[in-house]
Parts: sequence; structure tokens; C-alpha cells
Amino acid sequence: MRSKTQGDQAIPSSSPIGVFDSGVGGLTVLRALLDRLPGEDFVYLGDTARLPYGSKSPGSIRQYSLQAARLLHERGVKCLVVACNTASAIALDALTQEFDPVPVIGVLEPGAAAACGATRSGRIAVLATESTVRGGAYQAAITRRRPDAVVTARACPLFVALAEEGWTDGPIVEGVIHRYLDQIFVAGAAVAHPDTLVLGCTHFPVLAPTLRKVLGPDVAIVDSAATTAAALAEVLAQRGVLRHDQAAGSVTLLATDGPERFARVGAMFLGRPLAPTDVEIVDLAFAPAPSGT
Amino acid sequence: MRSKTQGDQAIPSSSPIGVFDSGVGGLTVLRALLDRLPGEDFVYLGDTARLPYGSKSPGSIRQYSLQAARLLHERGVKCLVVACNTASAIALDALTQEFDPVPVIGVLEPGAAAACGATRSGRIAVLATESTVRGGAYQAAITRRRPDAVVTARACPLFVALAEEGWTDGPIVEGVIHRYLDQIFVAGAAVAHPDTLVLGCTHFPVLAPTLRKVLGPDVAIVDSAATTAAALAEVLAQRGVLRHDQAAGSVTLLATDGPERFARVGAMFLGRPLAPTDVEIVDLAFAPAPSGT
Repeated sequence: MRSKTQGDQAIPSSSPIGVFDSGVGGLTVLRALLDRLPGEDFVYLGDTARLPYGSKSPGSIRQYSLQAARLLHERGVKCLVVACNTASAIALDALTQEFDPVPVIGVLEPGAAAACGATRSGRIAVLATESTVRGGAYQAAITRRRPDAVVTARACPLFVALAEEGWTDGPIVEGVIHRYLDQIFVAGAAVAHPDTLVLGCTHFPVLAPTLRKVLGPDVAIVDSAATTAAALAEVLAQRGVLRHDQAAGSVTLLATDGPERFARVGAMFLGRPLAPTDVEIVDLAFAPAPSGT
Repeated sequence: MRSKTQGDQAIPSSSPIGVFDSGVGGLTVLRALLDRLPGEDFVYLGDTARLPYGSKSPGSIRQYSLQAARLLHERGVKCLVVACNTASAIALDALTQEFDPVPVIGVLEPGAAAACGATRSGRIAVLATESTVRGGAYQAAITRRRPDAVVTARACPLFVALAEEGWTDGPIVEGVIHRYLDQIFVAGAAVAHPDTLVLGCTHFPVLAPTLRKVLGPDVAIVDSAATTAAALAEVLAQRGVLRHDQAAGSVTLLATDGPERFARVGAMFLGRPLAPTDVEIVDLAFAPAPSGT
């Protein structure tokens, strides 16, 4: 079995990189990975049959994440990128343990690193899903790096719905931003004014221009896509599996449901046109655990 | 086995009524059922681990609906109410076939009946999820009853997110309503002006007061909850299983994930306080098909 072979032998650099997300939001991360590592082959899996993860319990999120990762592992990936903040926050330990020695990279630690790199005052706001905020992993990852940081976390579930609907600017989006953020950012707000805002959900980068408009020029807006790409490049280089033999790699898109919707909504996140025929539908219910675990 | 017994013998009137939904929205229907049939026992199942159904494919919706219904069937229900418009639109035939002779009642036909009862002009607007609109079942159910009806269907996914967030009034909600409906209702709109609006998703009734404010007094706003309760009462009476021996029945709440969120968000839809301990968590993955099917 391939999974056993991976445990015993070095994984060839020609193997693809696996990327998984609860749906299409992770395509903002894939976009950054493609920019940074154009010569690599990528297999992206969006668990669209069970999205969103962000309102579900830790137990369900771990179970769904392991099933998604097993399918990518079966395809012989040399590295696994968890492009979903919620899964990174809740399931990273379980994934790392199950798929060792295949490296598993989440977006949460790179997002925390980006925040700590951008802040001057140490006051950081994290916008994320309900489950990510509730789990507290972002807050912990930031204060591990910068113990004096003051982190305010806010669940913004409407942002996901707005992004999925393709409503990224205009008065409705600005109104929702005000409703979620005025308490944190407006003068006289009870909470210390952050100088840095972390987009802690992969859906949120498409709202960044409108967030910038509402918040003004003085707040740094960071997401984890670029720092995740840098972290991936570093891990691949360390393991000696960075690919050098092709200029442009391939992208395989897998989803658990709805190729039409995946193509329509996903094109916005990936930043390039997609057709339903670009998306292969897979069933996660029977993805086996790697042998030996 | 109970399911076999149900096929061979009359189901006693003391059996509970099963109600299922993709999540907590169906509690608006349960509320109407409790008002109409206070002496019955109800078992409500919300498939919160996999919600929402409304953006998923017909195949997934059918599979999820059958699994949910099987669990209720195992609990010996005398009737099954599909409180989710999306599942009613996509999976009712499959459910009716699998659970015969247990009657299965969806909310879509009662919703269509309510619309046809309310309209004078025959111009009807249906607001629903993406999958319900795409499937065309509401449009078909209305025109079967009234062949000259002019039906305009509109997917309003943001309404679900707003209702789940508890944002039911104010400028953001009004802005979203205008964005979805101005094309249909504003003077000079391309589409014929409907005189009746069907709330074709169980999340939407909590937005009804704001819809009324935006649309004014001349549009009839109907949902399927009350007509579904009437249809259920009629079916129970026809089968001779209407319960007469208790004044106040019991309500059992089951969910596939997140009792805290179910209680918090569900209380708004049910219209009475709920505690997480009121919600029993069940696993649908292994719900067996009824014997003999």
C-alpha cells in the first residue's frame, strides 16, 4: 500500500501537494501556493458536501478533516496543507499524528506569524468562524509568539455567506462590517484599538478591499495565504522535495458535492475561470486510515 | 424488528410523530404542529452536522434525508413530517417509497396550497434556497393547482445566514431584502408584480415582519407551517391515529451536532427557551434501511 511505502521510503519530489478545505474558500490559499510554487503539482479537495465546518462541533470537524486528508494521502501526496482555518484550529494535531511522516501544514500558525509581523502595538483582532473563535487556537498561537499581545477574536459568520454569494462590496457589506467591528475599532469602543486585523477564515480575503474602506489606512490587514505558501516552500526545501523539473505544474480539483456551484463560486476565490468539468466528485465516507495507525 | 411490525400491523396512535429538518429552521414548523396538535408526542431531528442542505446537490440531499428519516423510523414514528423545504422538494418521492406505509408529509405541497389560497392575481413569488429553486418543485406544485399562475422563484441564501445569526430586522436585513426582491416587487420591475410571497424555507418566517415592512401591506406573505399542521391533522384523522388521551404531549429533540448552538439558535425558531441538555446527539451514519425495502 502506498501509505505504508510512504512510511518506509522517501516520498519523491514529483509527488503532488495535497490541499484541503471545507469548500471553496481554501482556493484563496491555493492561489497563493500557485504563485509561490508554480512548478509543483497540486491536488485540492473541497468537502462541499459537508461545508461549512465553522459552525460545527470539534468532534465533527476532526472526523471530517481526517476523512478528507485520508483521501489525499491515498493519492500519494508529499505534503498536506490544511487550507481551512477551522480545521487548522481544531484538527491539526490529529492530522499531524495520523499522517506522520508526511508533513502537515495548517494556515493558523502562518496567520499568527503574519499578525505578529505586522503589529506594532501588539493589539490584534482576529476575525474567524464561530468554531475557530470558540476553540481559542488563534489567540493562543499569537500569544505564544508575542506574550504581551492583546487579542480580540470575533466570529463573523455573515462574512462567509456574503463571500459565497459574491457580495463583496456596497452598503450591505459595509453595514455588516460595521455591525461586527464597530465595537472593536470605533473610537470610544470598550476594547483596545487593534492596529492589525487577521482574516482568520479563507473566505474573508475577498472582502479585504471593503474592510480596508471601512477601517481606513491605519489598520494592517493580514491573511495566512502568503505566509502559508512561504512555510510550505520552507518545509519542502528542508525535506529536499522541492520540485525543479517543470515550469508549470498541474492543478487537480476534487469536491464532495456540486461541481457547478464549486466552479461558479470557486472561480472568484481562485481568481481564474473554472468549469464544472474541471471538478472531479469524490466520496469521503470510505477513505481508509493509513496502514499502521 | 419494529420496522417490519409497522409494515404488518396498524401503528398505534400513541406512537410519536417524527419531524426532520437539516437543522433548526424546521422548529418553526414544529411550533405550528405543537399549536395544532398539542396532545401528540413529537420527535424532532435536526441534521446539524451536515446543514445546510440548500446549497447541496440532489444526490446528497436525498442520501442525507433518507438517513435522517431511517433514524426516526427506528423510533417507531406513526408519521414522518419533512420540515425542510429543500428535502421536501428533492427527496419526498424517495422517502414516501422507502417508508410506505408510514405516511410522509412534506412542507412544499402545503406551502403551494397556502400560496394558491392567498393569491388573487395568480402572480406568486417563491423565496427559497438555491437547491429548492433550481429543482423547480415549488413552481410545479403551484401550477399543478393553478395552471394560470405566474411563479417567480428567487434563491435567498443570505436570509438563512441572517436568521441563523439572529439578525431579523434593521437596515442590513432591509438592504438584503431590497437586493433580492426589488427586481421582483418594485414598480417598473421587469417581472409581473406578485400579490403573494411564499416563504419557501423554514428559516424565513423569522424575517416575516421585516419583509412586511419592506413590501408594504398589499402582498400576502405565507409560509407552509400552518397548512402543514392542517395536512398532518387530516392524515392522522384519516388513518385513525389522532391522539385523544393526553392534553399535552412530549417533545424529544435530536441533533447530529452541537447541542449548544442548537439550543441557542433553535430557541428563536421554536419560540421558547431551550437548554443544551434538552438536545440528544445522534449519529446518522449507521441508521439502517427499513427491512423489506
